[in-house]
Amino acid sequence: MENITCPGFTAAAVAAGLKKNKEKDLGLIFSEVPASVAGVFTKNRVQAAPVRLDKERIKSGACQAVIVNSGNANCCTGDQGMQNARIMAGLAASSLNISENLVLVASTGVIGKPLPIERIEAVIPDLVKTLKPEGISDLARAIMTTDQVPKWVSKKGVFKGHPFTVTGVAKGSGMISPDLATMLCFICTDIGAPPDLLKRALSVSVDQSFNRITVDGDTSTNDTVILMANGLSGAVIATEEDRISFQYVLDDVLMLLAEKIVRDGEGATKLIRIEVKGALSDNDARKVANTIANSNLVKTAFFGEDANWGRILAAAGRAGVSFDPESTDIFFDDVLMVKNGVGCGDSAEAEATRVLKKPEFMVRIDLKSGSGRASVLTCDFSLDYVKINADYRS
Amino acid sequence: MENITCPGFTAAAVAAGLKKNKEKDLGLIFSEVPASVAGVFTKNRVQAAPVRLDKERIKSGACQAVIVNSGNANCCTGDQGMQNARIMAGLAASSLNISENLVLVASTGVIGKPLPIERIEAVIPDLVKTLKPEGISDLARAIMTTDQVPKWVSKKGVFKGHPFTVTGVAKGSGMISPDLATMLCFICTDIGAPPDLLKRALSVSVDQSFNRITVDGDTSTNDTVILMANGLSGAVIATEEDRISFQYVLDDVLMLLAEKIVRDGEGATKLIRIEVKGALSDNDARKVANTIANSNLVKTAFFGEDANWGRILAAAGRAGVSFDPESTDIFFDDVLMVKNGVGCGDSAEAEATRVLKKPEFMVRIDLKSGSGRASVLTCDFSLDYVKINADYRS
Repeated sequence: MENITCPGFTAAAVAAGLKKNKEKDLGLIFSEVPASVAGVFTKNRVQAAPVRLDKERIKSGACQAVIVNSGNANCCTGDQGMQNARIMAGLAASSLNISENLVLVASTGVIGKPLPIERIEAVIPDLVKTLKPEGISDLARAIMTTDQVPKWVSKKGVFKGHPFTVTGVAKGSGMISPDLATMLCFICTDIGAPPDLLKRALSVSVDQSFNRITVDGDTSTNDTVILMANGLSGAVIATEEDRISFQYVLDDVLMLLAEKIVRDGEGATKLIRIEVKGALSDNDARKVANTIANSNLVKTAFFGEDANWGRILAAAGRAGVSFDPESTDIFFDDVLMVKNGVGCGDSAEAEATRVLKKPEFMVRIDLKSGSGRASVLTCDFSLDYVKINADYRS
Repeated sequence: MENITCPGFTAAAVAAGLKKNKEKDLGLIFSEVPASVAGVFTKNRVQAAPVRLDKERIKSGACQAVIVNSGNANCCTGDQGMQNARIMAGLAASSLNISENLVLVASTGVIGKPLPIERIEAVIPDLVKTLKPEGISDLARAIMTTDQVPKWVSKKGVFKGHPFTVTGVAKGSGMISPDLATMLCFICTDIGAPPDLLKRALSVSVDQSFNRITVDGDTSTNDTVILMANGLSGAVIATEEDRISFQYVLDDVLMLLAEKIVRDGEGATKLIRIEVKGALSDNDARKVANTIANSNLVKTAFFGEDANWGRILAAAGRAGVSFDPESTDIFFDDVLMVKNGVGCGDSAEAEATRVLKKPEFMVRIDLKSGSGRASVLTCDFSLDYVKINADYRS
């Protein structure tokens, strides 16, 4: 098996009995030295206790450990929920012998059930005892909920002669929509960076990756992306210019993780990239791409392998942006299916249907109204999505 | 069988071979005398040829007949599509011996296929020959696509001693979302009214009915609501005050038709009213209600009869409006499930689960931030929705 590590970081995971299936559900990431930290959190008005705690703590710019559980979101749990998030961080801190303020917390799972903190307390010593450099893949498994596969990506870069590593893990397969996808993501790097520069790099990457994917248009209360940089590689970025060298590697990691999330979308059988160009602005293009990518009618047609371009055009038409349907072209991969708003006939449709039978393809829409462009990754909408989500809590 | 009529109006339907199943697919409504007319059309940027034709013609304020087909939307069909819409109206006009400008056209069905106008031409004489007062229910059947049941409502009112009738038919069960639902609706009344007053009455009613329902969040290219008033009852409304007496009956007809559409939602097994109060404004309340009503995660939980209130609160949280989740209450019918953002425990959940097993129930959300309120009708999201829409064109 692939050995996923990042110099100066260790990780571990244990079963605390939060998930019904007795699988590992509590994880810990630890940096040998306090790291610079940046975070991006859900924009949902409803924010889980760990999100609220982290948003406060991350202001210091420093972090040395993240403790994370699946099986319970610790959301809509009132004052007790906030207390439990603090206790969870505190337990990790004392066992690691570091300051409580250097520990961040994340949770994912069912909303509105009290977090059984005593089960977490009982296994913290085990968790800390099993920390090891190659424990990151264990952690990636422990944070899974409806995910079918664990997700991690590790890439290397070089800055001024110093090689550095960026290693990320993520979970998420439903409640996935821009701002953010419902997901947790933890990224470790041994580059050094001041927190403000790290924050800028993370925001740019998230906007290019997790904010460009959708599974079902729902956003969550627990979305969290945390980037820790411990500086142990000797590579230290300090300026905007320096950031670019790091950005390149960070973008790569986040985009690959984002793609893995859509590929693992609940019930998904196909991965589809929606590319819009020719909009009046990039923002308009993004609205059109998102509306198509979230349309149930478009996504069920993809599942049915039906080149129903009328639904694509109709979804574009309700995106709330200005364009002329009568000059719009639609391609399925390279097959021109609609020319100036009119279908290209049966032979084009037969070719397009062949494209739709592939597990991955592109839908390209040219609005020919301007130079705005955007791209969004989505998946099809299958019977299994409904099955998974009708039965989620039972 | 119920005899649906409206004084001075006749209707008919025949099979023109536009639908694959050989059922009736072409209908005609005719008023003995030219009627005042008002219309509301889709706000989608992509508009079918008949919509574009009607929007132009309806400016005259007069109409005597509407010809409508199912099986083909005549949308994204280019110049030929516009020509075909005109020809379709022209054929009806000559056979009825009235001016072409007094004929409106509507179409529903697959987007992007040329309308086989010769099949329509062949059956126009039959269509006109079979016009009869009780033909309205035949027409209601002929406009069905994925609808499981035909939809009509007839109500009577009295204005200044004159009894009058309002009779409406509608189709629609998927691609249903506010502004407008994907639907056709034709309303006949024997009240008399100037077109501007009729337009005002229709706009008010549509906003209270068809703009408050959702099945899948998709809007269509062909949505059309036409109201014809032929004045034959002797009741004539002329002022804003007069309008109210008519409005009452018209609202009743449209709201009942809207309810029938959601009840017949593609794959729907439950009818759910989402009521939001305590928002900062009615508009905010509506955004929250619509976001909940369109959330796939909420709707699949309804299908699974799972009182997953966390998804409801999370959907409210991404509606883009300001409220305090920690003072939010959620009821399922009269069962208080969430008090100040926190779940009310297992016994409340057991009671709520009993509510969810009913075919119809209410979800009431009190944001306690202001006096804004809104109500939206939606349905659950079942396996059959996916089946129906994956296979629609095959």
